[in-house]
Amino acid sequence: MASPREQGGATAHAGAHDVDVVVVGAGLAGLRTASALRAGGATVCVLEARDRVGGRTWSEAIDGAMLDRGGQWMGPSQDRVAALAQQLSVETFPTFCDGRKVLELGGRRSEYERDIPSINPLALVQMQAALTLLDRQRKKVPVDAPLDAPDALRLDAMTVETFRDRYVKLGSVAGLMDCAIRTIFGAEPGELSALYFLMYLNAGGGLLSLAEIRGGAQQERFVDGAQALSLGLAARLRHDSALDLRLRAPVHRITQDRDGVTVTHAAGEVRGRYAVLAIAPSLAGRIEYEPALSAARDQLTRRMPMGATVKVIVTYARAFWRERGFSGEAISTRGPLTLVFDNTSHDGQTPCLLGFIVGRAARRWSERPERERRGDVLDALDRCFGPDARAPVAYVEQDWSTEPFSGGCPVGIMTPGTLSNAPDVLRSPQGRIHFAGTETATVWTGYMEGALESGERAAAEVLTRL
Amino acid sequence: MASPREQGGATAHAGAHDVDVVVVGAGLAGLRTASALRAGGATVCVLEARDRVGGRTWSEAIDGAMLDRGGQWMGPSQDRVAALAQQLSVETFPTFCDGRKVLELGGRRSEYERDIPSINPLALVQMQAALTLLDRQRKKVPVDAPLDAPDALRLDAMTVETFRDRYVKLGSVAGLMDCAIRTIFGAEPGELSALYFLMYLNAGGGLLSLAEIRGGAQQERFVDGAQALSLGLAARLRHDSALDLRLRAPVHRITQDRDGVTVTHAAGEVRGRYAVLAIAPSLAGRIEYEPALSAARDQLTRRMPMGATVKVIVTYARAFWRERGFSGEAISTRGPLTLVFDNTSHDGQTPCLLGFIVGRAARRWSERPERERRGDVLDALDRCFGPDARAPVAYVEQDWSTEPFSGGCPVGIMTPGTLSNAPDVLRSPQGRIHFAGTETATVWTGYMEGALESGERAAAEVLTRL
Repeated sequence: MASPREQGGATAHAGAHDVDVVVVGAGLAGLRTASALRAGGATVCVLEARDRVGGRTWSEAIDGAMLDRGGQWMGPSQDRVAALAQQLSVETFPTFCDGRKVLELGGRRSEYERDIPSINPLALVQMQAALTLLDRQRKKVPVDAPLDAPDALRLDAMTVETFRDRYVKLGSVAGLMDCAIRTIFGAEPGELSALYFLMYLNAGGGLLSLAEIRGGAQQERFVDGAQALSLGLAARLRHDSALDLRLRAPVHRITQDRDGVTVTHAAGEVRGRYAVLAIAPSLAGRIEYEPALSAARDQLTRRMPMGATVKVIVTYARAFWRERGFSGEAISTRGPLTLVFDNTSHDGQTPCLLGFIVGRAARRWSERPERERRGDVLDALDRCFGPDARAPVAYVEQDWSTEPFSGGCPVGIMTPGTLSNAPDVLRSPQGRIHFAGTETATVWTGYMEGALESGERAAAEVLTRL
Repeated sequence: MASPREQGGATAHAGAHDVDVVVVGAGLAGLRTASALRAGGATVCVLEARDRVGGRTWSEAIDGAMLDRGGQWMGPSQDRVAALAQQLSVETFPTFCDGRKVLELGGRRSEYERDIPSINPLALVQMQAALTLLDRQRKKVPVDAPLDAPDALRLDAMTVETFRDRYVKLGSVAGLMDCAIRTIFGAEPGELSALYFLMYLNAGGGLLSLAEIRGGAQQERFVDGAQALSLGLAARLRHDSALDLRLRAPVHRITQDRDGVTVTHAAGEVRGRYAVLAIAPSLAGRIEYEPALSAARDQLTRRMPMGATVKVIVTYARAFWRERGFSGEAISTRGPLTLVFDNTSHDGQTPCLLGFIVGRAARRWSERPERERRGDVLDALDRCFGPDARAPVAYVEQDWSTEPFSGGCPVGIMTPGTLSNAPDVLRSPQGRIHFAGTETATVWTGYMEGALESGERAAAEVLTRL
C-alpha cells in the first residue's frame, strides 16, 4: 500500500467529519459498498455524478416495455445478483433462445440449431480444441494474483490476437472467437493483454460461460430492467437517516490528511474518515488528488481505457423472427452488429431485437449520420431475419462511449503491460482511499456480480479501519 | 474533424475575446506555437500549470553545472532545434563518447570499442539482419498516415515484443534491442504497438538514429541545459505586449461556443477565439470539455499513457572512468540502469555520469526507500566503471512519473489498437481546439524537434482560421 504523505499541520477541517465514509459512484458497486458500510454501523455519504443511480445499468420505458440501455443479464453462479434480486423482489425471466440461429461469417450466411455453429467439421474440431486449450490456460491464471500464472510476463506482453493466432489457424474459427471476444470486452482482440484476457475468463468461469445464453452469463433477464437492482438498493438507503445519497455531484478533487479525506464535488464538499471510489479506473484518473496518488496507481488509470459498446434496441409490432422459427440470435463478422439477441419484454407485449456494435466499429459510430447508421442496422437485421426487420416501431441507440460519466462499456480493459506494471494497485488502498467497482472484482470481473463483490470487499476493508 | 455542438444562444462571454488564441502549456511546443502565432499577428495567452516554462526540459544547477533533469540532446536532422539554438545564441557541445563501452548482458560483463557491441559473431549477424529488416519495415509506415502501411491493422494488433520475436531468436540480441527500445520510450517492448513503434522510428530516421550518440539523437548537448531554449523563447515573448504568459495556471475546463473558447484555470479564465493544447494527450484527457470532445478523441487520451523514466545524475570529483579509458557509456539488461552516459559539463569542471531507469523498473522506483535506490545505482556504476563510482559528490534522481504535470517521460506511448481506433484524432482539431505537442509531430515524434514542428503546424492551422 502506498501511504500518502501525511500533512504535519491540521487543516481547517481536521477532526470534523461529516460522515465516516464518502462513497464515490452510485452504480451497483457504490450502492453495495454503502449498504454494507451501513450494515456495519458506519455513516455514509454517496456522491453520484449523474442524475440517476445504476451506473452502467440503465433501464427505460421503450415502446411500452422497461428495456435496458446498459447491462441486463444474470447467469448461473452469479449468486450475489440472484440474492439481491430476491431480497428486493426484483423478478427475473429466462432470455428467449428457442429456434434457429444465424451466422454471417466471411460474407456467407448460414443457419444452425442448438449451440453448434454451422461451420465445416474441420473448423468445428479446431474450435473445440481451441476452447479446451483456452479453458486449461485460463484456469492457471489466479484472478487475485495473475502474475503468479506460469509465463505471466510473456502473456502480458502479447495481445489476444497474437495469443489466438498461435492456436487457431482457420479464419472461420478465428472470426467466430473474435465475435465473442469483441462483445465481451467491447474491444478488439488486438487491444487486449492475453494475460488480462485469461484472468477475466477465469473470473467468470471460462469463455463459454461468458458468451452463452443457457448456462451462461446471458441466461436471465429482469422484468423491470437491471437498473431495478440499483433503484431498489437506493430506495432502501434513502430511508436511512445515517446515509446521504446525492445525485448530480461529480467529484473533482479528493484531499487526504492525517485525519481523513475531503471530497470536493460540483455542489460542495464532504468530509469523511475514508473514501471508497466505486467508479471505473479510467474515470478515477480524472479526479485530482492531494497529495498525488502513487505513480503506479496514476499509471493504471491511464492504462485501462473503457471498452466501446453501442446497444441498438429495435422494437417491432410482431416477433416476426420467432414466427419464422428464428431464436433472434445472430453472430456476424460483417457488421455493424456483431451479435444480435431476442430482447422481447417478459410478457411478449413488446417484440424486440437487441444488437451490439462493439470495438473498433463502436468507437467511431456516433460520428456517422444517424440516418445512415439506422439504415446499416436495419440492413443487417434484414439479412439475418428477413425484410420485416425494416419496419421497426422504436429504434434506440445507446452509445456508451459518448456518456461522459462512463466513457464506454461494458468494462475498463487492460492493454498489454498493464498487469506487469501494476499488479497490485487495482485494489490496494491508497492511504485513506479504497477502491471498488467491477474492474476490481475477483469474481465475474466486469459484470454486475463483480460490482457487488467489489463493494462487499471494499466495505469490509474500511470497516476494519473504523 | 469532429465539430462540437454549437450552442444556439450566445453566452455571457460571446464576442468579448481577451485574446485570439489561448495556448495551454509552455513547453517547447506551446512556446513555439505562441511565437508562430505572434509572428502571424495573433494575440496570445499562454497558460502553464507549473511555476516554470520548458515542460519535459528542465535544467538545474547541480554541483556547479547546469545539468538536465529532462530532455537534453540534439542530433543531426533536428534542424528546428539547431536553428532555434542559433537564434537564441544557445551554445552546444558534442556529447563525450571516446573510449571503451561496457555491456552487461545476461549476467556477463564485457567491454567493447567503437559501435560494435561485444556479442558473439552469430549474434552480431542476427542483430545486423534484424536492424536491416527493421529499417526496411519502418520506411513503409508513413508518419502522418500509419494505417496506409501494408499490413497496418495486423501490426497495430501486436506488441513490439511479439514483432521482435519473429525476427530475433537469440536472447543476447533481443536483450540489446530491448535496452534501446526501453530507453527510447520509457516502456517495455511488450506494452507498445508494433505499428506505432515503426511509425516512431520512421519519424526519427530509424532505430540507430534514435539510439546513437555520434550521428544520432544524442550527438550534441546544450552548454546551459536544454531548458535554455524554452527560457530564451519565453524571454522574447515576455517583451511582447500582445502576449500574456501565465505560470501556475493549470487548466481545468475548456468551453466552446459559436464564437470562441473559454479556458478556466486555477487563477481565473481566459476567453479566446481558438485554443491550442500543447500538452501530452494523457494530460489533455484530464481537462473537462464542454461540449464533450468526440468519443474517439476521448478514447485516445485514455490510451496514450506516458512512458516511465527516472534520470539519475551522479557527479564526481574526477572523471575516473575517462582516466581508465571508458567513454562512460554502458548498456545493461541487469539494471536498474538500462543505459549510462558520460554527462560531464561542457567545461569538464563537473565530471558526471547519467543513468536511465526506464519502463517497468521505473514505474515502481519511487516506492522503494531512497537509501536502497541509491545503493543499487552506485552498485551498478561500480560494476561498470570501478569502485570510484561509490563516492559521488552529488546524487540526484528525477522521477518523471511522479511529476503531476508530466505523468511520465519521455513521451506518451501508444498501446496496441490505439492507432487503428483513432488514426486521425491525434492532430485533427476538435471544433475550435487545435493540438500541438511532440506526440502529434510528424518528424522526430517524442523529441524537442517534434515539439517545435507540432507548434509550427498548430499555429499555421489556427492562423488560417483567424
